[in-house]
Amino acid sequence: MQPLALTMGDPAGIGGELTLRAWHALRARACDFVALDDPQRLAEIGKQIGCDTPIRVVTGIAATGSIFPDALPVLPIPLPVPAVPGHPDKANARAVIEAIERATALAQSGAVRGVVTNPINKAALYDAGFAYPGHTEFLAALTGVSGKEIMMLASPQLRVVPVTVHVSLRDALASLTTDRIAAAARTTHDALRRNFGIAQPRLAIAGLNPHAGEQGALGDEERRIVEPAIAALRHEGIDVSGPWPPDTMFTAAARKRYDAAICMYHDQALIPLKTLDMDHGVNVTLGLPIVRTSPDHGTAYDIAGKGMADPTSLIAAIELAADLTSPAQCGRG
Amino acid sequence: MQPLALTMGDPAGIGGELTLRAWHALRARACDFVALDDPQRLAEIGKQIGCDTPIRVVTGIAATGSIFPDALPVLPIPLPVPAVPGHPDKANARAVIEAIERATALAQSGAVRGVVTNPINKAALYDAGFAYPGHTEFLAALTGVSGKEIMMLASPQLRVVPVTVHVSLRDALASLTTDRIAAAARTTHDALRRNFGIAQPRLAIAGLNPHAGEQGALGDEERRIVEPAIAALRHEGIDVSGPWPPDTMFTAAARKRYDAAICMYHDQALIPLKTLDMDHGVNVTLGLPIVRTSPDHGTAYDIAGKGMADPTSLIAAIELAADLTSPAQCGRG
Repeated sequence: MQPLALTMGDPAGIGGELTLRAWHALRARACDFVALDDPQRLAEIGKQIGCDTPIRVVTGIAATGSIFPDALPVLPIPLPVPAVPGHPDKANARAVIEAIERATALAQSGAVRGVVTNPINKAALYDAGFAYPGHTEFLAALTGVSGKEIMMLASPQLRVVPVTVHVSLRDALASLTTDRIAAAARTTHDALRRNFGIAQPRLAIAGLNPHAGEQGALGDEERRIVEPAIAALRHEGIDVSGPWPPDTMFTAAARKRYDAAICMYHDQALIPLKTLDMDHGVNVTLGLPIVRTSPDHGTAYDIAGKGMADPTSLIAAIELAADLTSPAQCGRG
Repeated sequence: MQPLALTMGDPAGIGGELTLRAWHALRARACDFVALDDPQRLAEIGKQIGCDTPIRVVTGIAATGSIFPDALPVLPIPLPVPAVPGHPDKANARAVIEAIERATALAQSGAVRGVVTNPINKAALYDAGFAYPGHTEFLAALTGVSGKEIMMLASPQLRVVPVTVHVSLRDALASLTTDRIAAAARTTHDALRRNFGIAQPRLAIAGLNPHAGEQGALGDEERRIVEPAIAALRHEGIDVSGPWPPDTMFTAAARKRYDAAICMYHDQALIPLKTLDMDHGVNVTLGLPIVRTSPDHGTAYDIAGKGMADPTSLIAAIELAADLTSPAQCGRG
């Protein structure tokens, strides 16, 4: 079984210390990964935060599985200048990008079974020619599927897919279309079957308005935009229900009735997910030809290098990537 | 100590059976109430659903406290025609309205300490001259404070106040103003001090957009509309924080930092509340000269008369009304 690839992320952020903590948490389990990172900086972080970690520099992927229980395997991507916690340096931007590019290429070739990415800071990469709104779009471009990428947030209790994401609520309303809802639902349906091991995925489609519009009294987008998407998806044989009143579709009882919720805007998806479980949310990119997960937080410059960063979300991201590429190996589900 | 008044609600709905169940649940506790209802119909419902309940018709409020442990005190409001579960009859509309009017008058005179309302169906009342969007606006008109009423939803974990309520999301965006946010926050602040026993209430003001607008990159309403309200409230000495990113402000850790969240739209408030606790949410009307609570559900015609209705939310509404009018008597907090 191939390992996962774990990227460096922004070396001024908390990625390095999370990588070390994740290795300690997972070394005894079937979630082995290889870090694409600068081995010297990882060793220094280990000393700095009091998390002594044996590191093994590797030149290829083949033997990393047998190394993993004893040492963190690192495929080296040297940093041109030492990283200073909390202070991103554009001199290191190219190495950050290279870690993502190499991890993606390894996944496309089958040498690794999936990619887990540590957080980056887009602003720190723009000078190095990075021209994407974020990781997700970059991965879509690298794998030749730009525009097909869909963000899912998954926690043990809930999977949500926002149709509109990082735009203002006003722009979300303006950009919501029947086609976008249907496309997000199709991609989710396919991913649930292919990667999540769900033979007949059940999708719940949220309404946009309070009470899902209350028969038009509180908004007409359900009738104009959401219901035609549901009809089209049903016609294709996809098990969809809705449009559901947004406030009651995330209760424990309601969640039993679907495998993923298709949401109309960012906070409709993320409020219930984070309210239920702030720490175990994992970002999964659907619609790529590779499996990619990431923790649901940023670079956290304010606490970088202090040994305070919580690895829970990165560990959950690694566990989920392992499960998505080999069900029941890592035991998260 | 005066009792609470509990209204009939729509007699074709589940209100009657909830009233009986609530009496059984609360008879031994200091949450005594008097039902404003048709005693004969309550007796019949008791037989019908197998919930035998001693009923005592009263003509005044004074002695109901000593009656309550042994029988449900009922201040009679006779129905002109028998109520049929699931089938509202406009011949009974006037009695439904009268129960609300009399309960409100009793609260204003101090004869009862607060009002708890069973669910009504506005549509069934319009022919009888009811000209309000709902209970809340009717109570504001009856007590002479139209336009001051504010809806709070309270559960054991969270209190939320939506600034815009029963309008489409598009209309919510269009109608959100600095003045409305500040007015909702002021009313909430006053109610938390006066009724909830919180000497120095802490209010968390939500942003409107994902990540609270991310410094303007994801929307400018935080800068244009929300922040000026926060500045004005601070200037008045009110303890407010925000604008908070909506998706992370309802986590267990974040909830410890405030006593109520002021939310920009219906689902921003109700998704976290109902996701955390579907059954114990109570609707509290703030800004009235009387205390009024209600269960957070409707008439449920589909299950009326079958004995299946869950009284949890009505019981929570009675307990909260009792606590708001005499702290620590009923033990909900």
